[in-house]
Amino acid sequence: MWTSIRRFASSATPQRQWTVYLSGEIHSPWRAELAEAVSHLPVTLTGPNDDHALSDDAGAMIYGAVPTRPHWDSIGARLNGLRTTTNLKEADLVVVKFGEKYRQWNAAFEAGYASALNIPIITIHPPNLSHMLKEVNANATMAVDSVEKVAAALDYTINGTEPATPKDWTPSEDIWGKGNPNPGGK
Amino acid sequence: MWTSIRRFASSATPQRQWTVYLSGEIHSPWRAELAEAVSHLPVTLTGPNDDHALSDDAGAMIYGAVPTRPHWDSIGARLNGLRTTTNLKEADLVVVKFGEKYRQWNAAFEAGYASALNIPIITIHPPNLSHMLKEVNANATMAVDSVEKVAAALDYTINGTEPATPKDWTPSEDIWGKGNPNPGGK
Amino acid sequence: MWTSIRRFASSATPQRQWTVYLSGEIHSPWRAELAEAVSHLPVTLTGPNDDHALSDDAGAMIYGAVPTRPHWDSIGARLNGLRTTTNLKEADLVVVKFGEKYRQWNAAFEAGYASALNIPIITIHPPNLSHMLKEVNANATMAVDSVEKVAAALDYTINGTEPATPKDWTPSEDIWGKGNPNPGGK
Amino acid sequence: MWTSIRRFASSATPQRQWTVYLSGEIHSPWRAELAEAVSHLPVTLTGPNDDHALSDDAGAMIYGAVPTRPHWDSIGARLNGLRTTTNLKEADLVVVKFGEKYRQWNAAFEAGYASALNIPIITIHPPNLSHMLKEVNANATMAVDSVEKVAAALDYTINGTEPATPKDWTPSEDIWGKGNPNPGGK
Amino acid sequence: MWTSIRRFASSATPQRQWTVYLSGEIHSPWRAELAEAVSHLPVTLTGPNDDHALSDDAGAMIYGAVPTRPHWDSIGARLNGLRTTTNLKEADLVVVKFGEKYRQWNAAFEAGYASALNIPIITIHPPNLSHMLKEVNANATMAVDSVEKVAAALDYTINGTEPATPKDWTPSEDIWGKGNPNPGGK
Amino acid sequence: MWTSIRRFASSATPQRQWTVYLSGEIHSPWRAELAEAVSHLPVTLTGPNDDHALSDDAGAMIYGAVPTRPHWDSIGARLNGLRTTTNLKEADLVVVKFGEKYRQWNAAFEAGYASALNIPIITIHPPNLSHMLKEVNANATMAVDSVEKVAAALDYTINGTEPATPKDWTPSEDIWGKGNPNPGGK
Amino acid sequence: MWTSIRRFASSATPQRQWTVYLSGEIHSPWRAELAEAVSHLPVTLTGPNDDHALSDDAGAMIYGAVPTRPHWDSIGARLNGLRTTTNLKEADLVVVKFGEKYRQWNAAFEAGYASALNIPIITIHPPNLSHMLKEVNANATMAVDSVEKVAAALDYTINGTEPATPKDWTPSEDIWGKGNPNPGGK
Amino acid sequence: MWTSIRRFASSATPQRQWTVYLSGEIHSPWRAELAEAVSHLPVTLTGPNDDHALSDDAGAMIYGAVPTRPHWDSIGARLNGLRTTTNLKEADLVVVKFGEKYRQWNAAFEAGYASALNIPIITIHPPNLSHMLKEVNANATMAVDSVEKVAAALDYTINGTEPATPKDWTPSEDIWGKGNPNPGGK
Repeated sequence: MWTSIRRFASSATPQRQWTVYLSGEIHSPWRAELAEAVSHLPVTLTGPNDDHALSDDAGAMIYGAVPTRPHWDSIGARLNGLRTTTNLKEADLVVVKFGEKYRQWNAAFEAGYASALNIPIITIHPPNLSHMLKEVNANATMAVDSVEKVAAALDYTINGTEPATPKDWTPSEDIWGKGNPNPGGK
Repeated sequence: MWTSIRRFASSATPQRQWTVYLSGEIHSPWRAELAEAVSHLPVTLTGPNDDHALSDDAGAMIYGAVPTRPHWDSIGARLNGLRTTTNLKEADLVVVKFGEKYRQWNAAFEAGYASALNIPIITIHPPNLSHMLKEVNANATMAVDSVEKVAAALDYTINGTEPATPKDWTPSEDIWGKGNPNPGGK
Repeated sequence: MWTSIRRFASSATPQRQWTVYLSGEIHSPWRAELAEAVSHLPVTLTGPNDDHALSDDAGAMIYGAVPTRPHWDSIGARLNGLRTTTNLKEADLVVVKFGEKYRQWNAAFEAGYASALNIPIITIHPPNLSHMLKEVNANATMAVDSVEKVAAALDYTINGTEPATPKDWTPSEDIWGKGNPNPGGK
Repeated sequence: MWTSIRRFASSATPQRQWTVYLSGEIHSPWRAELAEAVSHLPVTLTGPNDDHALSDDAGAMIYGAVPTRPHWDSIGARLNGLRTTTNLKEADLVVVKFGEKYRQWNAAFEAGYASALNIPIITIHPPNLSHMLKEVNANATMAVDSVEKVAAALDYTINGTEPATPKDWTPSEDIWGKGNPNPGGK
Repeated sequence: MWTSIRRFASSATPQRQWTVYLSGEIHSPWRAELAEAVSHLPVTLTGPNDDHALSDDAGAMIYGAVPTRPHWDSIGARLNGLRTTTNLKEADLVVVKFGEKYRQWNAAFEAGYASALNIPIITIHPPNLSHMLKEVNANATMAVDSVEKVAAALDYTINGTEPATPKDWTPSEDIWGKGNPNPGGK
Repeated sequence: MWTSIRRFASSATPQRQWTVYLSGEIHSPWRAELAEAVSHLPVTLTGPNDDHALSDDAGAMIYGAVPTRPHWDSIGARLNGLRTTTNLKEADLVVVKFGEKYRQWNAAFEAGYASALNIPIITIHPPNLSHMLKEVNANATMAVDSVEKVAAALDYTINGTEPATPKDWTPSEDIWGKGNPNPGGK
Repeated sequence: MWTSIRRFASSATPQRQWTVYLSGEIHSPWRAELAEAVSHLPVTLTGPNDDHALSDDAGAMIYGAVPTRPHWDSIGARLNGLRTTTNLKEADLVVVKFGEKYRQWNAAFEAGYASALNIPIITIHPPNLSHMLKEVNANATMAVDSVEKVAAALDYTINGTEPATPKDWTPSEDIWGKGNPNPGGK
Repeated sequence: MWTSIRRFASSATPQRQWTVYLSGEIHSPWRAELAEAVSHLPVTLTGPNDDHALSDDAGAMIYGAVPTRPHWDSIGARLNGLRTTTNLKEADLVVVKFGEKYRQWNAAFEAGYASALNIPIITIHPPNLSHMLKEVNANATMAVDSVEKVAAALDYTINGTEPATPKDWTPSEDIWGKGNPNPGGK
């Protein structure tokens, strides 16, 4: 039997697995929180190595110590890039979290990388960063301010789950009327 | 042993799974009917969220209400696009159903999107819409007027199943002769 | 000498020529109006054959008359596609005009085609069609309601020309303050 | 001033140059005839080396004679491929002429090559070859039986020139009525 | 333990499945013979519908009969193209068999299609067709004259299996000496 | 006559024009300085609109004022994107300047965008930002600290011009010996 | 529960399988050694046929002996290319080992091939070949001198495993201080 | 008037300019010799910086000296790559010259790079290097032993010029008969 807003697969068809790359901030447990929030969904989460000290030094530990910092960093960053670039390229969605602290140029770099490959992005950031992120957000599916909203977006996208009703919610039908007519325009 | 018109796979090879995206009309149960008609085939059906009211409002429910309709709609349509675009891009075939009512610009948009990506399309529409759809149909594998014909096309394509014999059917061999010669041209 | 917001080319460098494909409505002189409005810009305008009767019959006039309409139309539409597809693919920008009348599925088809190829689109339509076009507009750079606004967008994009000041205009700096800080968020 | 069905370019804009690759038959003067027929159009014609004996031996003349024919031919065909493949890839249109004689597998090969690259093709062939060419023609913009019809198709495509009125011509409007309605369907 | 010329996978890794598309001749049982010859290899064989009469008429049986042959054929060939093009595009190798009879333009078309997509091809044909096929063979990995040789090429490619020793065989080492002598080298 | 390290073109061949996109910092005159420094080279410089106030408001001036800042910014950023993305995609090189101030997420975004498209980048930044930019620099051709060094890199790349000899310079030959041998390794 | 530096997959998600192509040197058991060193990782190793004599003659054994060496080699190399090219194209990483002996042009060729396809490469070579390999290494993620270092790089990349602490190791934090500030630059 | 084997362009059409990248050996004047030999052809020659000492040190001269050789070389090679990669990617043909001396891994690397991008290559090398270059040559249009033969191949390809008749030449027609004999017919 067919059920609205769901996938029309026979029971023998394995459900599509979504791969979501988690870019950006590494100093809060947001990846774990999102993992928890989407644990009921067919979602594989990937991301960069988020152990800050290790990601700085792993390259030099393997290659050998280097006397100048830019080259030490180049070796480290190129090795980290093996993981991040491989995972980025095969993501169905990239979630990028920006915070108040740090430059986070690698987060913006990965957002640009994903956009150029036509991979959709969702950004998470405090509302007061909105203007500084306007170029990134203009390329995003959505800009939200919490992990929960990303989880809701994924649940709606994959399973058609209705998001929780916001406080004081008025559906668009009640505001602008039913059906397609849009009298008065914007 | 080899059998004509079938896949030459050893029994250990899993059959190719076809992914078919169902675009267009959301006010009739045609997706369920097609799902039923191809339930014996290795076909995964995907499509947009077909709950009209929810697809209008889900974006704003997650993002937050927005005072102007074009932006409300932009947030909703971009979120819906996460599902539709991801599924469209990985379809082996896009079936697009046009009906008498509504503008259905999103259906034609998705047909164009698929065509640009070299994904074959089959259109379903009442015969009297044929002239208005001539640009879409010129890019289609076939334009038919029923879900059953799409199912027959898939069964023939995947399994080599002979379609049901139409009423008053005369095979081409009986009309123009056997073999390649095509005397008299068009 | 360097001048802000302009191209930093030596005088020996020919200016970049922008190619803009004009899709959609063929029953008003909007293409001529836009040509007039951008006549001072390095813009080449292309588009479909906009002689309605001829575009219906040119294919059959060359190929020969065909007894059934869908095939007559298929021959015509495939020939027209030689012009439209070639021009669409090499456009820097596609402008699509939707009106109140007709189904205009070919316009939406071309918008989808352009989007899949990552070619930016700008739509022109009466405000009251906004909701029906929400999927198309979600993929657009901008949705406007006049040819003049497209010309202003091109003049700003190419030459950095400041658009005409709208009536009762308040700059964003006067509304939300200067610089990047965005206190209070959305 | 704007004129229907033409390019909306300012007089300073050079007209788009179309590149048309002429594939297939090398034993009749059809390339010269087409060159004559499109001499008033902004069309650059390219094609394979059509000196049969030279195209067989040029490779071996440069590389050195080879004792076995398949290798002699391989060296020749790979050298010819430098010209044909380079030109094929940058064509806007590929015209392929098939005749009664010879296998012409290279013509069909080039048609397939062009199709895979999304380059439109027009075939020229005697009507009685139609059935044998059905797979090629299904991928073609149009299949015609004369060089003149290719020239007419190009003139219509590039300049919007109305094709010559066929004998006993009845416009589609007179057959099926004006406007979009298509009552009765196919 | 590692064994020369084999895949270095742990036993837990499923072996790579090769997909081979069988193009061309449909009037001999060569597909069945090849299926038999590679039945011990991880190879999935695909190909066109090889029931000649059905492949001519299936399109019209679904779409409805059409009064003119070119359009009847166009509908049929476009439907067959759904199967052939989908399978061609995802092949790791395309084997194309040419015989003495028939024009087989569709076989050459598919060979060109595969080449343009960088899919390797192997041709099978009687030696006396070699010159007519020189352009196709110049793009092929190998041109052979039997199904057994294709099977040997696959067995060598996938498993590193040594081909059967030909009659009167002399290894290259015995003819031109051992190793990579590079006199002068550094 | 042939001259080492230069282009081997006949005098009739126009020299290759390099297109360099200048991304990042808009509050210093570095674009004008670079334009001056490369004015003798066949280089076309492009970049974003660098009038800060205008780039914030141009979108809303054309589209109409919008009551919420994120949507105001979205309209502005999408319009600016028409210029930046078109120019970015066709650049031969992207130079990105990072400074001490501001978040400059759009600069890092554009660097990521260029990298994903395989367009080489050169970064300019004060040395003390090196560690924060390690992921961007790992994808860069070179990271330098002045506009002059970018000009020197372009002059060497295009014309083979020897860079100015640095103070206390010792050529590599004098340090590690002449020729390829590299005894002792790193 | 979420664990730092690991994949955030539910237990039901199969771990990502990495495919690593092993190019270059065929006269030492380094492929077996690497297979052993990564046997605990989800890594599939692929590579060329490494039986030197067989890889020289397999083509001619199947095709038939050829009187001239360049054609004998061409047939052999094209057949070997079926394996190498197919595997190269789908690798996530290409490891290329260069040694003191032999020209190894095929190894450098495969490194270039991979780079053009944006597939990351890691080179293994004795330190004293570093200067001769500078162009290859400039395109590599890392250049190392042992199989063990490749295994460590993979273990860090896939599982976030900390590499073995080198002798006399000082972490970067202890050298240049903690956090992002990088005073003094390079 | 149409002339066999030539381009069918009106006199107003500028002739196609071929871009040929010259890779490999930098210690002989072969680039100058080829430039001389093709000076009558519409060919633009490009290539790497061929000043050996400068190409080793230019990067460090701009960036600043670096204490370790691999990093010194990395900076140099990445800067050189800006020129080589940009030119390689837009070549219509890559000519690669291998000599007896040096490792020339960068030449083989560039050959592989070009092949992966479907850019045809012609190799020049002494005949005795043929076996070591078999993988490179299997991907080449032709392998020759002199600059003159490259010039002859270009003259034939571009203008259809008949190559000089080799000593003791017998045309293929005199060896194997005229035409496409195909015993057994269609």
